[in-house]
Amino acid sequence: MPSSTATPETAGAALSVNARSEALVAQLVDDAAYYSVAVSHTDDGTVIVDAGVDTRGSVEAGVLVARICMGGLGRVAVHGDFGSEPLWPTMIDVHTSSPVLACLGSQYAGWSLAASKEETGGKKFFSLGSGPARALAVKEPLFGELGYRDRHDRGVLVLEVDRLPPKVIVDKVLRDCGLASDRLTLIVTPTSSAAGTVQVIARVVEVAMHKVHVLGVPLDEVVEASGSAPLPPPAPDGIEAMGRTNDAILYGGRVHLTVKHDAVAKRLAAELPSSCSRDYGRPFAEVFKSFSYDFYQIDPALFAPAEAWVSSLESGATYRGGRVDAAVLTEQWREQ
Amino acid sequence: MPSSTATPETAGAALSVNARSEALVAQLVDDAAYYSVAVSHTDDGTVIVDAGVDTRGSVEAGVLVARICMGGLGRVAVHGDFGSEPLWPTMIDVHTSSPVLACLGSQYAGWSLAASKEETGGKKFFSLGSGPARALAVKEPLFGELGYRDRHDRGVLVLEVDRLPPKVIVDKVLRDCGLASDRLTLIVTPTSSAAGTVQVIARVVEVAMHKVHVLGVPLDEVVEASGSAPLPPPAPDGIEAMGRTNDAILYGGRVHLTVKHDAVAKRLAAELPSSCSRDYGRPFAEVFKSFSYDFYQIDPALFAPAEAWVSSLESGATYRGGRVDAAVLTEQWREQ
Amino acid sequence: MPSSTATPETAGAALSVNARSEALVAQLVDDAAYYSVAVSHTDDGTVIVDAGVDTRGSVEAGVLVARICMGGLGRVAVHGDFGSEPLWPTMIDVHTSSPVLACLGSQYAGWSLAASKEETGGKKFFSLGSGPARALAVKEPLFGELGYRDRHDRGVLVLEVDRLPPKVIVDKVLRDCGLASDRLTLIVTPTSSAAGTVQVIARVVEVAMHKVHVLGVPLDEVVEASGSAPLPPPAPDGIEAMGRTNDAILYGGRVHLTVKHDAVAKRLAAELPSSCSRDYGRPFAEVFKSFSYDFYQIDPALFAPAEAWVSSLESGATYRGGRVDAAVLTEQWREQ
Repeated sequence: MPSSTATPETAGAALSVNARSEALVAQLVDDAAYYSVAVSHTDDGTVIVDAGVDTRGSVEAGVLVARICMGGLGRVAVHGDFGSEPLWPTMIDVHTSSPVLACLGSQYAGWSLAASKEETGGKKFFSLGSGPARALAVKEPLFGELGYRDRHDRGVLVLEVDRLPPKVIVDKVLRDCGLASDRLTLIVTPTSSAAGTVQVIARVVEVAMHKVHVLGVPLDEVVEASGSAPLPPPAPDGIEAMGRTNDAILYGGRVHLTVKHDAVAKRLAAELPSSCSRDYGRPFAEVFKSFSYDFYQIDPALFAPAEAWVSSLESGATYRGGRVDAAVLTEQWREQ
Repeated sequence: MPSSTATPETAGAALSVNARSEALVAQLVDDAAYYSVAVSHTDDGTVIVDAGVDTRGSVEAGVLVARICMGGLGRVAVHGDFGSEPLWPTMIDVHTSSPVLACLGSQYAGWSLAASKEETGGKKFFSLGSGPARALAVKEPLFGELGYRDRHDRGVLVLEVDRLPPKVIVDKVLRDCGLASDRLTLIVTPTSSAAGTVQVIARVVEVAMHKVHVLGVPLDEVVEASGSAPLPPPAPDGIEAMGRTNDAILYGGRVHLTVKHDAVAKRLAAELPSSCSRDYGRPFAEVFKSFSYDFYQIDPALFAPAEAWVSSLESGATYRGGRVDAAVLTEQWREQ
Repeated sequence: MPSSTATPETAGAALSVNARSEALVAQLVDDAAYYSVAVSHTDDGTVIVDAGVDTRGSVEAGVLVARICMGGLGRVAVHGDFGSEPLWPTMIDVHTSSPVLACLGSQYAGWSLAASKEETGGKKFFSLGSGPARALAVKEPLFGELGYRDRHDRGVLVLEVDRLPPKVIVDKVLRDCGLASDRLTLIVTPTSSAAGTVQVIARVVEVAMHKVHVLGVPLDEVVEASGSAPLPPPAPDGIEAMGRTNDAILYGGRVHLTVKHDAVAKRLAAELPSSCSRDYGRPFAEVFKSFSYDFYQIDPALFAPAEAWVSSLESGATYRGGRVDAAVLTEQWREQ
C-alpha cells in the first residue's frame, strides 16, 4: 500500500499553456521552409511568423498552429473521410482531455488588439489575439472566471489578420504579457490562407466550449471534448473566407462533450447546436451581410457546431442534438 | 550483393515489452497533471499511478495506458467517425504488427492477483493484472504456449480495480517479477473511470486474439491485426461500467486480422464474431446478471468483437463474419 | 512592425528529402526486430534492409517505408473505416503540404535499375527505384522539370523487387548518387509482401501527381494533397499482387488536391480519375494480361485514383470527378 505519507505529487498542478507550446513553436520556426512560413525578427528580437501574408503557408502549418493555439493540450489531425459518399473528403479531427484550459484558457480568440492610424503611423490595425499568451496578459474577464493565469518567461500569440502587426501592437503584447522582447513569438494567419483556414476550423471544440459559457453552464462541467469538421480550401475573398470557416463549424461541425451532470448533458444537447439560432440555415457570409457586416447583430447562439453529442458522467447516458447538414456546405463549396 | 557472411543482425530478436513501454510510463508519470493522474510511491519506492481512483483520469491517460499495456507494440488513437449518421461520434482505433506479443504476451488481463482480509489487514483485494510485467512473472500457462519470457530490470503492470493495491500485492508482484522495489510501476484504472473505459475498449484486438486462442487456432497464424470500437463515457455503476466496455467490443467492435492460411481465415470469420455465442443479443450486464454474476457461466464464445474480417496470406482472400450491431449500443447508451 | 531590414530566413529554402528521411531510416534500421525486417551490410558498408524477401516485414514497416519514400514530407497512417458498412475495414491515409517534392521529387518509382546476367554473374536484375536518393542521382528528365536536385551526404532508395540487389546495382546507385559506400541505405520491398503492399498503396497521392504531370498541367499548380485507399493483404502471386495494389488505387483511391487556378481544378476533376481511361472497369491484372503483360500497351490514363476532389485557390470552389467503386475490389478481394 502506498505509504500514508505519500502525497500525489502532480495531479492538479497548474499546467502552463505557454511552456507546453514552446517546443511546438520551435518546430514551426526551425522548420519554416517545410511549413512554407517566413520567420523574421523585430529590431527588439520578437519573432514574427508569417503563415500566409507574404508566404503560402500550408495545411501542415495550420495543424501545428492549431496545436500551439490549444497550448499543447489538444490533438489536431487531418484525416480522410473513408465513406463511399463523404460529405467532404478531408476532415479536421480534434481531441482534448483539458477542454476548458485548452479551448478557453488558450485557443479562444478573445484578446482585442487595436491601434489607430496615429499609433501605427500608417493604416489602423485590428486583430483578435488567440493562444497561450492571452493567459500571460489576462486582459479578459474570462480569466477571472477560469481562475487561471499562466506564468512563464516565453509566450506565443496567434493573430488572425492579413498583415504583420505594427510595432505599437508588438510592444503592447510584450508589455501586457510582461515578457522580454525576445521571448515572444507572434504567428500571423490570414483568414483566407491555408493555415488560417485550418486553425479556425480546428476551433470546432472551442466554439462549443464558448457556447457552453454563453449558456451559463459552469465550465468545470466539461471534462472531455472532441470534435470534427470539414476542411475546405480558403476562399479568396476575406468575407467569404470568414464565412466559409464559420460554415464548416456551423453546418459541418460535430462535437462530443463529456460533462459531469445529467441535466447539463440534456440541456447542452438541446441548446448547444447552431440550429437553435434564429439565424441558422443560411451561409454565414450571407447572414453577416444581412446585418450590414455588424458582427454584434448576429445571434450569438449561431456560433456553435451543427451537431452535439453530450455524455453525462452522472448517468452514463449520452444525448444528441442538432445534425450535420451537408446542403449549405455543398451548395457553397462545390461545383457540380 | 550483400556479403555472403553478412547476417541479419536484428530480425527475430526478442522484443522486450517492458523495455519498449518504459518511455511511455515515464511520459505518464512525468506529465501526471496533464493526464489527470496522481503519482505516489510506496515506502519501498514502487511507483503507483492512480488513473481514476482518487483522481479524474482522462481519455488521454487511457490511450497512453493502452499503449503501455500493449508493451509499446501497438498504435492506439481516438478519432471521430466522420459519417453523416455515425453509430457513435468517438472511436478507438488500434493497430499492431505484433498481435501475439502485444495482445497476449502483454495486454491480456491474465494475471490473477488476490489477497485475503488477513493478508491486507483490511478488505480483501482482487484484481486482474495486465500489461508488460506479466511477461516478467510468467505465472500463466499461456506464456509456455507463447514461448515468451521478458527479461528487463524495470516493469509495469496495469490493474483494473477501484482502489490502490495493498502492500501484500505490491510485494507479490515485485517478487514474482524479480524486480527491485523501485523498478516497478503499478497503474490503477477503475472500470468506471475514463482511463479505464479507454484501456478496456482498446482491447478490441486483444479480445479477438484471445478468442483465436480459445478456438485452438495456432497463435502464430496471426501476423497483423487492427480494430476499432466506439468509446462511450464510463458508466457510474461498476457492473454497468463493465457491461458497457464489453458491449463496445461485443456489439461495436470490428477487427481485421491477417493470418497465414486460407482455412484459418475462413474458419475465424465464421467462428470469431460474438454473434456465434448463445449469449449474444443482450447487453452484457444483463447476461452477467442472468447468471447471478458468475462470470464462468457466461459462454466464453461471447467475448469477441462483433465483426471480423480475416485475410489470408495463402490465398490473398478476405473473409468477413459478424456485423457491428448498433441497436444494443444505442438502446443502452443513448437518450433520445 | 518587423524591422524593414528583417528578411525571412527560411521560407523557400530548399528541403533535402534525403536529410529529412535520415531519422526515419535510422528508426527502421535500429528497430528492425519490431518492424520484422532484416538489416545487413555489403562488404563496402552499404546498408541493405530486407523488408519482405527473407523476412516477414510488416504493415508498420510499410508505413515507415512510405514516409521515407516521401522524403519525410508526408504523413502516412493506417486507420479503420468506422462506417457501419465499410467498403474495407483498413485504410491508408496520406497527406502532404509538399506534393510535388514529396511525390514526384522523391516517392515516384522513376529510376530504372537493370543489370544483365553478365553483370550480375547470375540472374538478370530489374527494379524501379523510388525515394529520396533519386534526387541525388537525378537520372530522370523529370528532375529538370522540377528544377530540384538534392545535395546530401547520405541517401536512401527503395526497390520494389523480390530479391536483394546485386553488387553491380549497389555500385551503380552509389556512383550515380555520389555517395560514400557506407552512406547509402537500400530498402527492398517485394510487391507481394506486407510492407510492399502498404508502400505502393500509399502512393495514392503520387499516382495522382504523376497523372497531373502526364496531363501536362504545370506541377506548381498543386499546393496541397491528401488521399486514401483501402489496404488489402498482399496477393501471393506476383502479377496478382501488382494488380491488387493498382486496383486499391484505381478503384478504391480518393484524392483531394488543392490547385491555384479554377480552370485547372475543373479540368483535373474531369480528366484525373481512372474512369477516364478506356481500360477502366476490369481488374488491373486482367488488363495487364490482356495486353500480354506489356506494360506499355496499357492506357497511361488508367493510372489514377478512382475519385478526385480538386479545390481551386482562385475561386475557392471544389470540383469532384470519378467515384470510388467497390464492385471490382469486393469481387476480387473478398470471399462471401
